[in-house]
Amino acid sequence: MSDKVIVTAAITGAIHTPSMSPHLPITPKQIADEAVRAWEEGAAVAHIHVRNPEDGLPVSDLELFKEVVTGVKSRCNIILCLTTGGSLGATTAQRVAVVPAFKPELASFNFGSINFALFHVLANKNLQFKFEWEKQYLGMTEDYIFPNTFKTMREYCQYFNENDTKPELEIYDLGMINNVAFMLKRGFLKKPVYLQFVMGILGAAPATLENLLFFYRTARDTLGDFTWSVCAAGRHQINMCTASLLLGGNVRVGLEDNLYLEKGVMAGSNAEQVAKIVRIARELGREPATPDEARQILGLKGIDKVNF
Amino acid sequence: MSDKVIVTAAITGAIHTPSMSPHLPITPKQIADEAVRAWEEGAAVAHIHVRNPEDGLPVSDLELFKEVVTGVKSRCNIILCLTTGGSLGATTAQRVAVVPAFKPELASFNFGSINFALFHVLANKNLQFKFEWEKQYLGMTEDYIFPNTFKTMREYCQYFNENDTKPELEIYDLGMINNVAFMLKRGFLKKPVYLQFVMGILGAAPATLENLLFFYRTARDTLGDFTWSVCAAGRHQINMCTASLLLGGNVRVGLEDNLYLEKGVMAGSNAEQVAKIVRIARELGREPATPDEARQILGLKGIDKVNF
Amino acid sequence: MSDKVIVTAAITGAIHTPSMSPHLPITPKQIADEAVRAWEEGAAVAHIHVRNPEDGLPVSDLELFKEVVTGVKSRCNIILCLTTGGSLGATTAQRVAVVPAFKPELASFNFGSINFALFHVLANKNLQFKFEWEKQYLGMTEDYIFPNTFKTMREYCQYFNENDTKPELEIYDLGMINNVAFMLKRGFLKKPVYLQFVMGILGAAPATLENLLFFYRTARDTLGDFTWSVCAAGRHQINMCTASLLLGGNVRVGLEDNLYLEKGVMAGSNAEQVAKIVRIARELGREPATPDEARQILGLKGIDKVNF
Amino acid sequence: MSDKVIVTAAITGAIHTPSMSPHLPITPKQIADEAVRAWEEGAAVAHIHVRNPEDGLPVSDLELFKEVVTGVKSRCNIILCLTTGGSLGATTAQRVAVVPAFKPELASFNFGSINFALFHVLANKNLQFKFEWEKQYLGMTEDYIFPNTFKTMREYCQYFNENDTKPELEIYDLGMINNVAFMLKRGFLKKPVYLQFVMGILGAAPATLENLLFFYRTARDTLGDFTWSVCAAGRHQINMCTASLLLGGNVRVGLEDNLYLEKGVMAGSNAEQVAKIVRIARELGREPATPDEARQILGLKGIDKVNF
Repeated sequence: MSDKVIVTAAITGAIHTPSMSPHLPITPKQIADEAVRAWEEGAAVAHIHVRNPEDGLPVSDLELFKEVVTGVKSRCNIILCLTTGGSLGATTAQRVAVVPAFKPELASFNFGSINFALFHVLANKNLQFKFEWEKQYLGMTEDYIFPNTFKTMREYCQYFNENDTKPELEIYDLGMINNVAFMLKRGFLKKPVYLQFVMGILGAAPATLENLLFFYRTARDTLGDFTWSVCAAGRHQINMCTASLLLGGNVRVGLEDNLYLEKGVMAGSNAEQVAKIVRIARELGREPATPDEARQILGLKGIDKVNF
Repeated sequence: MSDKVIVTAAITGAIHTPSMSPHLPITPKQIADEAVRAWEEGAAVAHIHVRNPEDGLPVSDLELFKEVVTGVKSRCNIILCLTTGGSLGATTAQRVAVVPAFKPELASFNFGSINFALFHVLANKNLQFKFEWEKQYLGMTEDYIFPNTFKTMREYCQYFNENDTKPELEIYDLGMINNVAFMLKRGFLKKPVYLQFVMGILGAAPATLENLLFFYRTARDTLGDFTWSVCAAGRHQINMCTASLLLGGNVRVGLEDNLYLEKGVMAGSNAEQVAKIVRIARELGREPATPDEARQILGLKGIDKVNF
Repeated sequence: MSDKVIVTAAITGAIHTPSMSPHLPITPKQIADEAVRAWEEGAAVAHIHVRNPEDGLPVSDLELFKEVVTGVKSRCNIILCLTTGGSLGATTAQRVAVVPAFKPELASFNFGSINFALFHVLANKNLQFKFEWEKQYLGMTEDYIFPNTFKTMREYCQYFNENDTKPELEIYDLGMINNVAFMLKRGFLKKPVYLQFVMGILGAAPATLENLLFFYRTARDTLGDFTWSVCAAGRHQINMCTASLLLGGNVRVGLEDNLYLEKGVMAGSNAEQVAKIVRIARELGREPATPDEARQILGLKGIDKVNF
Repeated sequence: MSDKVIVTAAITGAIHTPSMSPHLPITPKQIADEAVRAWEEGAAVAHIHVRNPEDGLPVSDLELFKEVVTGVKSRCNIILCLTTGGSLGATTAQRVAVVPAFKPELASFNFGSINFALFHVLANKNLQFKFEWEKQYLGMTEDYIFPNTFKTMREYCQYFNENDTKPELEIYDLGMINNVAFMLKRGFLKKPVYLQFVMGILGAAPATLENLLFFYRTARDTLGDFTWSVCAAGRHQINMCTASLLLGGNVRVGLEDNLYLEKGVMAGSNAEQVAKIVRIARELGREPATPDEARQILGLKGIDKVNF
């Protein structure tokens, strides 16, 4: 299966705000619909955040998560990867609550603390905001640290292990690969790990081919066997995912990371981005893995073992 | 002056605790004495933290700083680089207070947020602690983030600019080089910057030759002209400093970073580490810069413009 | 024009032999037809070798070159880049003769000596040869050095300069980038140079993303401004060209380098490979340069200044 | 023994000419004396070339080799590593003749063909030559290729294997590491190999820390376990050897590679360079291996199995 590529669609995230794109899914139904359409185009995994259906504010509401995951599960067998990054400002306890609540096959696990900065987009004077929270949400990140201490990570490991949820380790900067090595050595994580290199967040490592290759090599030297994927902010999305295809890695696209399909052209849906990276993958001799193939590659427990 | 190397001695720091080495300077007098002895061996810069004279707890007390800096200044012309990292747990306002208070030529400026973890040393069962605070201080870092948000950094820039204090930008991980590029672009920092690559803190980038070279290349590609130095935790100190010598960079040694002189042999003083790196530098054709040569290389305002 | 990509088609080369693919063009008419079809699909440059029309043996016959270049020129404005690598075993004087004879806009210029080995393909027991020369030609490369000494390079520079032919510097291994720096410093080459990284020849550097990135960085650090392209042997062709697209470089495809379109599928023509890389380029936001745009990017003298 | 470092002294080589330094050993007695003095300072291996005792011309004369190796063996147990690179212009058969003749424990084995250029030193107008051959010898390298084809390498492997002589594989450029991988796969070489990275020959890879680190990583990724050492031309000698010490590698110094001890100071002997790198090694926590320790590290047959 080395030629198979796992395509993840990160449906809505907690970075973009509704005024930035009319296509950003907000309600549980929209999020579920987008996940199903992404699956139709070749995505094996949908990465799920939820938002307040009224105004699009990123939240950690378990009822909203439930609507999404049951809605998707009733329509297709895509792997649901729930966020434990949550919305900026949520407590670490709030963020991880989805793991015991839904016992998902896969959930994200952010592997270190960084300045997670979005405030610089406010320098774009063309941005008009429909909702009051948007500008403040973005602006407050000038003083924001995304908190994932070693203690938090130790506690999260326990949640993941107890619920047989595979962690997708989000790696934003070089030192986080060493955090993984440390937690492996301490026995909190199990091999083989699954890494998601998240490139291009202001406060962490920029999205360059050199950085990606260096991360990949460092992980290879440090962690032994591992599975990995790449996502990147904004206009770097497709380039970084293509680089991952060349290196044998997997890819994550989606409106969480990038609202565009190409320069000057907004993506009408997550599915359009999935379709695009699938076309590129096929040119490069890599076929999208089905959800069940992805389950096998990642060693997941199976959709019958989740709690939804 | 390209063959000159600026040797910094980081005299006591806030990482090691008194029980770890009998040679760690604690009182203002000890700290000042160590700085002068480091100068005698070739150090051009002394990096200064202070500790409670009773029990060695790292603190941010301006009176203690004053004792140290006036004590040193009366005896030699070494550049005094005051910490704004302070002690773990100090507020960002407390940490920067030394800049307006003493208007030093040079002060450290930590350029991003990370998990700053020391707790893992407690796994060493041979450690015996004389003071109650030590174990707790180290242990609490499992849940500690060293906070340096973009807002904090913006505010610190103002302090540095207003007092004509040159910032020594402490770079712990790859993304922080991009933070520097961002703050340069926004006009908060001025070129040429002076970087200190701090390698080997758990939570950030490990001290490897590959990481150092990658940081150096990344900075070179991103920042234009810059001056730089390297320090590294523990047993990596001399190796990383030697690599810096090979790359044309400057070096920081001292008991803040490493308590040993060589494998199994504790350093009796900061001066011993300075002497060692100076011997190596000379073998490699690099002569230690005098304080005044270092002032010229770094573009400092001069010792007559400080407020002590 | 930074989004434009120059696509070169290396039509037939001197590496593959007729028995390896029924689609390898042999006669001047076949070679010219393939060049025109490549142009129709988006190629801006055709890289030209010639072969004995009877048996496909790579030769350096000026009459054959003339048939090809006049044939192509009468039908389209593609840039004709003539080889001075010639056929394995040709003298250095024979190889360069195309430059004074045709005064082309562009010609290849191999920038160092290496073992240029093809003999290992004979380990493939499925290969059946139609012509006697094929096996011997491949086999003799176990003892073959592709000779391009500094004296040869100095003399070639003179030919290129005298005829205002832009050299496409073929870089097979890391040291050759330094050869370029040396010949620039000596004044034999002029800036900006145009490099073709040729990856994956046995005897030189393998076709890996790491090697390509390292070559690119080394050239960037050493040569100042330069234009560059990538080609790679066999199954690495499309991956290495895609990596070049990601890095802002140009690409060379064609049957000289690779007989396949994808795994297990032979390319029916050079044009098919051109079409494939153009599809990928467009997905990545890069449009193929027209021949005239390529002339501008490379600083060529123009098709009206050639001697054919 | 991981802290032990094998120091090789390359006593006289075939690159420098007598007029370049009065300290270059020429006669068999001088060469033997230098080897013994290098051993006294900590060298475990002496790399041996011979020269015409009358005028210092590098030659491949077996009688001269015999004088050297018996002379050294009678006085100390240093490992004698005989050159099969020989003098520029010698035939490949002449070059390898030392292996069957002396069945040494170790001999050099150049692993690919390059332009091996020395002519550029003639640009130094201060050079005055005592012997007629010197200028011509250096000048002819503008048109010189150091020939080591795959066929030559295959044949040399047989000589090494038949005489149980360990090959020290001289790696001048990136592609040669792949040559090693190829010959291992073909079964001509045996694991673990011993590599000597030769940095800074014009025609091959320059002596930079980046190149060395890239070679080291490439070898590590490609070859599995291996032992390695570094030498570098001229002023890069001590820096590249120090980098090797940092990376856990071994070092080669000696007048073959560099005539200086430091900037502007000629080395009075090979021993002075050995002493210098030993001082640096000890500062970095690495102790020079004795010849017998080096025999164990390299897996040599022992001095009792040689034919001299």
